[in-house]
Amino acid sequence: MGIIVGERINGTRSRIAKTLKDRDADRIRREARKQASAGATHIDVNAGTSPATELDDLLWLVEVVQDAVDLPLSIDSANPPVVAEALKKVKQPPLINSISGEKSRLDGMLSLLKGSDASVVALCMDDAGLPEDTDGRVKVARDIYSLLTGEGVEAGRIYFDPLIRPVSTNPDQVEHILEATRRIKSELEGAHAICGMSNVSYGLPDRNALNRAFLVMTLEAGMDSYILDPTEEGVMATYHAARALLGRDQFCMEYIQYFRSRQ
Amino acid sequence: MGIIVGERINGTRSRIAKTLKDRDADRIRREARKQASAGATHIDVNAGTSPATELDDLLWLVEVVQDAVDLPLSIDSANPPVVAEALKKVKQPPLINSISGEKSRLDGMLSLLKGSDASVVALCMDDAGLPEDTDGRVKVARDIYSLLTGEGVEAGRIYFDPLIRPVSTNPDQVEHILEATRRIKSELEGAHAICGMSNVSYGLPDRNALNRAFLVMTLEAGMDSYILDPTEEGVMATYHAARALLGRDQFCMEYIQYFRSRQ
Repeated sequence: MGIIVGERINGTRSRIAKTLKDRDADRIRREARKQASAGATHIDVNAGTSPATELDDLLWLVEVVQDAVDLPLSIDSANPPVVAEALKKVKQPPLINSISGEKSRLDGMLSLLKGSDASVVALCMDDAGLPEDTDGRVKVARDIYSLLTGEGVEAGRIYFDPLIRPVSTNPDQVEHILEATRRIKSELEGAHAICGMSNVSYGLPDRNALNRAFLVMTLEAGMDSYILDPTEEGVMATYHAARALLGRDQFCMEYIQYFRSRQ
Repeated sequence: MGIIVGERINGTRSRIAKTLKDRDADRIRREARKQASAGATHIDVNAGTSPATELDDLLWLVEVVQDAVDLPLSIDSANPPVVAEALKKVKQPPLINSISGEKSRLDGMLSLLKGSDASVVALCMDDAGLPEDTDGRVKVARDIYSLLTGEGVEAGRIYFDPLIRPVSTNPDQVEHILEATRRIKSELEGAHAICGMSNVSYGLPDRNALNRAFLVMTLEAGMDSYILDPTEEGVMATYHAARALLGRDQFCMEYIQYFRSRQ
């Protein structure tokens, strides 16, 4: 069973940046509850990238969101010391978002993973950057998988993100992602595949139609988890519909349940 | 390049049955134009199944629809003598909808196909009924393919419909359809794959979410043509979005064009 990480509380978005600056806890609580009620299983907290404020802001977000909803968090930071402090505050095993094959980041996060029951998003890129093709992505995933499982991190705690580029400028991206997903799920036993959804439609009109179609395709290829805005129109209905069609939802009960919960 | 057959003018629907009885040409013209403007490449005409009225009603529909739109028709009848009369009236090479491996129907239609430039929908069922699994569907398709191409009907004129059952009662249907589509497209050179969309969601709520997700999955598996209601919300946007994601739409130009045409 996969997870749905609600991505709305992100300090790199100007509205959330202002909310952080104002310490507007009501606003953050509303964002958390809205995503939980739309179907998120995890709430992402990202405090932006300013070294001067990230730690304080993130710890505040962790506290406010946990006060609002009874869901695990996704600690969204590339900075190991910041993640380490956040891990001390979480009430449920969180998701660390993210590591990659970049050595400095990976080394710093590894001890955190070994010393906790956190899961982790592992981006399929390394010090050479984001691979162009399927093989490159799978190779990075395999290297991270070997390293982490060799250090005792269970495969089921690893969520590989093959990293989609915008299709407007990279017409063969989706084929690479679908193939990388199939290979990650079949070759790296027990690991999950996750992806952020909105990047695929960057620069194109009616992004909702593209995002929803991308969700269906990736799900069919074996993607089990998503980082997305669960309040975006039709996205969660599409998720449940695709699972029902693929026989991953016995007698369509989850689908029907989801539909009833929206009435 | 595939085709989109607009399915709304169907005499088995009670509203259209009444329209036929009243000879309400304005209504039929509106239905035809609405579907053309939504993106249909063919307009299906189905005059219902009553032997007493089918021929007269179908010929009337052929005339009225051709008067309204400049698109080829899909002659929707299982009755070869009726189809034969309709073929005499069409202004553009039509689609015959449909034949199957059922011997009586196939024999009657074969001479019509040989004597015209019509294309044809070939249902993957035979005298033994609708096969449960992928192999059964592909076997029927292969038999029809051999027969038709052996008689000189070009493969590109054949649109195989693997026949989807409702997922509510047949949880493994979609996997069979996806696999049958992949095999038809790879094993029966030059032939098309087509399907009706709405049957998959029969008996379930929010059928639109299911129909759209099914469209995306089948398109990814190689389905190139559809029999659908192009005026159903988001369906044609989903079609263009999925094609753009799959790299079947260079630089997403068709997608952008479609979006602009809706403004």
